Amino acid sequence: MAESPINITFEPTGRTVAVLSGTCLLEAAAQAGLTIDTPCGGGATCGKCRVRFRSGALPATTAEHEHFGPAELDAGWRLACRAHPTTTSCVEIPVGSLFAGKHQILQTATSAAGPAIDCGVRKIYVELAAPTLADTTAHVERLIREIGECEISAGVVRGLHAKLRAASFSGTAVLVDGTLIDFEPGDTTSACYGIAIDIGTTTLVASLHDLSTGDELAVTARVNSQTRIGDDVLTRIRHATSSSHGLEQLQQAVATDCAAMVQQLCQQTAVSRQHIYTAVIAGNTTMQHLAAGIDPTSLGQVPFIPVQTAGMCLEARDLDLATHPEARIHFLPVIGGFVGGDTVAGLIATQAADREGNSLLIDVGTNGEIVLARDGQLWATSAAAGPAFEGARISCGMRAAEGAIEKVSLTDDQLTFSTIGGVAARGICGSGLIDAAAQMLQSGVLTPEGRMRARDEVPHDTPADIVRRIETDAQEKQTFRLVNADGDGRGPGITVTQQDVRELQLAAGAIRSATRMLLKRAGIDASNLNTILLAGGFGSFIRRSSAQRLGLLPPNVAHEQIRFVGNTSLRGAQWVLLSRSARAKAEQLARQAELVELSTDRDFLNEFTEAMIFPADDT
Amino acid sequence: MAESPINITFEPTGRTVAVLSGTCLLEAAAQAGLTIDTPCGGGATCGKCRVRFRSGALPATTAEHEHFGPAELDAGWRLACRAHPTTTSCVEIPVGSLFAGKHQILQTATSAAGPAIDCGVRKIYVELAAPTLADTTAHVERLIREIGECEISAGVVRGLHAKLRAASFSGTAVLVDGTLIDFEPGDTTSACYGIAIDIGTTTLVASLHDLSTGDELAVTARVNSQTRIGDDVLTRIRHATSSSHGLEQLQQAVATDCAAMVQQLCQQTAVSRQHIYTAVIAGNTTMQHLAAGIDPTSLGQVPFIPVQTAGMCLEARDLDLATHPEARIHFLPVIGGFVGGDTVAGLIATQAADREGNSLLIDVGTNGEIVLARDGQLWATSAAAGPAFEGARISCGMRAAEGAIEKVSLTDDQLTFSTIGGVAARGICGSGLIDAAAQMLQSGVLTPEGRMRARDEVPHDTPADIVRRIETDAQEKQTFRLVNADGDGRGPGITVTQQDVRELQLAAGAIRSATRMLLKRAGIDASNLNTILLAGGFGSFIRRSSAQRLGLLPPNVAHEQIRFVGNTSLRGAQWVLLSRSARAKAEQLARQAELVELSTDRDFLNEFTEAMIFPADDT
Repeated sequence: MAESPINITFEPTGRTVAVLSGTCLLEAAAQAGLTIDTPCGGGATCGKCRVRFRSGALPATTAEHEHFGPAELDAGWRLACRAHPTTTSCVEIPVGSLFAGKHQILQTATSAAGPAIDCGVRKIYVELAAPTLADTTAHVERLIREIGECEISAGVVRGLHAKLRAASFSGTAVLVDGTLIDFEPGDTTSACYGIAIDIGTTTLVASLHDLSTGDELAVTARVNSQTRIGDDVLTRIRHATSSSHGLEQLQQAVATDCAAMVQQLCQQTAVSRQHIYTAVIAGNTTMQHLAAGIDPTSLGQVPFIPVQTAGMCLEARDLDLATHPEARIHFLPVIGGFVGGDTVAGLIATQAADREGNSLLIDVGTNGEIVLARDGQLWATSAAAGPAFEGARISCGMRAAEGAIEKVSLTDDQLTFSTIGGVAARGICGSGLIDAAAQMLQSGVLTPEGRMRARDEVPHDTPADIVRRIETDAQEKQTFRLVNADGDGRGPGITVTQQDVRELQLAAGAIRSATRMLLKRAGIDASNLNTILLAGGFGSFIRRSSAQRLGLLPPNVAHEQIRFVGNTSLRGAQWVLLSRSARAKAEQLARQAELVELSTDRDFLNEFTEAMIFPADDT
Repeated sequence: MAESPINITFEPTGRTVAVLSGTCLLEAAAQAGLTIDTPCGGGATCGKCRVRFRSGALPATTAEHEHFGPAELDAGWRLACRAHPTTTSCVEIPVGSLFAGKHQILQTATSAAGPAIDCGVRKIYVELAAPTLADTTAHVERLIREIGECEISAGVVRGLHAKLRAASFSGTAVLVDGTLIDFEPGDTTSACYGIAIDIGTTTLVASLHDLSTGDELAVTARVNSQTRIGDDVLTRIRHATSSSHGLEQLQQAVATDCAAMVQQLCQQTAVSRQHIYTAVIAGNTTMQHLAAGIDPTSLGQVPFIPVQTAGMCLEARDLDLATHPEARIHFLPVIGGFVGGDTVAGLIATQAADREGNSLLIDVGTNGEIVLARDGQLWATSAAAGPAFEGARISCGMRAAEGAIEKVSLTDDQLTFSTIGGVAARGICGSGLIDAAAQMLQSGVLTPEGRMRARDEVPHDTPADIVRRIETDAQEKQTFRLVNADGDGRGPGITVTQQDVRELQLAAGAIRSATRMLLKRAGIDASNLNTILLAGGFGSFIRRSSAQRLGLLPPNVAHEQIRFVGNTSLRGAQWVLLSRSARAKAEQLARQAELVELSTDRDFLNEFTEAMIFPADDT
């Protein structure tokens, strides 16, 4: 049940995404390219993430009863951070609940106030005089006489006669980046579309845009079929390298996914795929290499370099993309082997490099990408956080799906939990683990070094509800129990083990030490950070106080300076789709960013070792 | 026997061509790109076309006995205009016998003194530092650091890692027109080749060149496989237009021919086809359209316009050409539907536009292309001469092959003939027909209007050998007998009929009136022509005096001003192959040339009608 996909439609945009049952509405909205504002970090305390279910509303939670009156609840008002739909639903997001609606920083990332549209695609309707004995100008030159000098694709030349004849010498010239790629009978100037695609290691998201207005017409998402071959990028690189048709197979997998998304977007909007003339693809460096069919071997070997960092442009037919066969497909430039086009897109979408002061952009996932901007100067690096934040390698870990403990808090000396979907707990996801560890650290169950204390070692003022959860086994190893085993022995319950804490220490330590290395390189103290931008799905669920308590985010940065910015990879790709100056800017930023290579830095090992020790309580 | 192909090898260049048995050595040499000097027009009188057979010499003719001593004849010296090899032969051409060796006008068209080489292909050997943790520059950017900014083909990016690794990061970058199309392990800078191709309606000729030196390494020729579908361009246009895969079939036919020629050239020279990076194709407009896969429908319908006049550039893989798959294939620009890239190539090869004074370039074939140059200004047109010059539609007509009467002269009041190969006459070819008609006109057998007189109508001083050849049938129609019917009735003999004369009148009249229209347009009198350049195979065999007598060439132009310039289509393609400035010049000439459309010109019908009347004898 929990694994079956359901459709969530968001109004007034009409965007529909398919997600797993129990997925938090915040995440579903993010997949749809809609970032809901969550000043409290999804903690159900600020009440800002108001949405109205037109259909599919679940019973209101306690928190929702606090924020809404009975009439509002009856009308379907809920908090997006509490809503985990388990059935096909239609949800209205008031503009006041959208992140972009309120904060200047991302206002320009919405289509309503996006970049000045200059996407490089022009359609020109012409009515040519038919050739006569008195005017024997050749077809191509006759067309150029009207539309001006341009490159002309061989395909257009080959079939031009029939097209001109079919429509009595009138029709629409289609120019992409200065090349005539088609001549369509009749006036089709109003049908001019493009696609932005975020190729994630796990999830693909694509949006369809009207290139005349920039309007987003539809969004769709699906699981990256490459996951059948392996969950992480290194497995896929190995497959591409060692198997004879491995690269082809991986390229085909993602190409087929993209083609299916294009088809779905076209079906939803009744747009003809022949009218899609350009696409922009953003993803991490490995995903972009595989999607473009580039041998990724060098990404899997020391010193882990890409084949090319500059943006590439291919034709759709080279990629079997189901758009116009000569559509131009632009890949974002990358910064390095582990800092990819998704990060460059993030810089474009957040305009981090153009902001005054110091900003930190963090995209937390298996691989954390971190960029520090100081007055337009950029330092970028990546940190191998490992999959702990996604619930992997954690004894009771799971993805953020129905039944996952996603929040742990201490109220009146009692530890309380929320699970996704409000159902019985099945495991713990990344944000829940961070919360739990922060509580254990705060209450003294964990030492700063991450050792779990036995009951008789904890400080004397530790709440009883905390102490009773500490269990010690025959090998004198401690575990921290969140949920009891079923009485009838059906389930072992949910615990946090010493090993889980070590995994978390490694993950948080990687992000923390990488951040500190960038700050050091730029000569900035963490307290001088003006903004921290948290990108990616995970960023939207993390509790800022817990993350800061564990050192995952720098301390001394006020909560209101920490912003959840959602899927900036897709939004950046959209900018680049709609604006050639954004495309040029992306190239410039990728070239300008200094890639900080941690593995060769002597300081890094020290930093990393230090970062494994949790920060002292500064509250 | 007569139709079996034989190989002729020319020394010292080593070029080999396959020709039909009995083909005149002048024509075989022209196919090999070698123009032998024939001031007397191939009449065996000047003795300038001296060649030496190393093998395969035939018995010496009377004319050869006059020009050579017995020792010379024993050593294999012969006249190229008399030699019609019937077996595989090796022939040495002394430099003094080559047209280009003596006449300034074409000196620069030989590879020895050709254009300054600037073919747009660069090979750069580089030894790159292997990436290290301290130098993590990506592969592509590492290469660009050495060779400079350039466009990079997607194929190179996709496979670059393996190629760099295979050769320890050294290798040779291959740049064509500013785009990196390959990276080859090791130092391959010395292997850099290109191909020039002349796509004739009937015959294809291709030459392989070393792009570093411009040297021509080999030449090959073959029959255009499209002839299986139809002999003339209109039949092929109709096939492309009416049959569902007609265009594809015609394109494939010529592509397969070209690929076979590439393979043959590579075999002859041990050059790898992977090292052929560029090719230039010249042909008439229809041949170029079909070779490039362009729908030729508009070339077959009023007002007979091309789809594109500007030069095209395709990649070899688009044409299945067996060179480097990303080799750039340039098609010459064309002037109009019936004045094609072969004519533009002719302008390049003869530098007609750059010469002082007035020049006329005539390429006689089924379709005659004529260009008039006056101080750099160009007027171009085409004349539908019909196939009479190639022996078609003539009662006893045949192609210029063994057994064809190719010369008719009056010596001591006796009509004498020579046949190709010196064998018994089987028919009459174009040059023989022109000679015969000129003699008939001169002796009064033909009236200026082209009517054949009966025996009792001819002038009283007509030689008896002429008069006896006039025969009148029961319908009072005259024929002129060249060869008697066999006594045993096996053959009807060879005659020129009234209808044959009419066909010739039409053909010569078309060329003559078109020439006169150009002269009129340019305001030039024929007597002010400084040079007439006769291009194409046919031009090499025509007797200038006969052609002038019939009005095919303007009178009042001294024989030494009429030059046979051979296959200028191939030579022009070679220039464009070796020189980007020649390529640009071709575009400029094609655009600059004024296409004179005869069918819409009111004067033309008058001119044509007048041109049907043979000129008065001005001797």
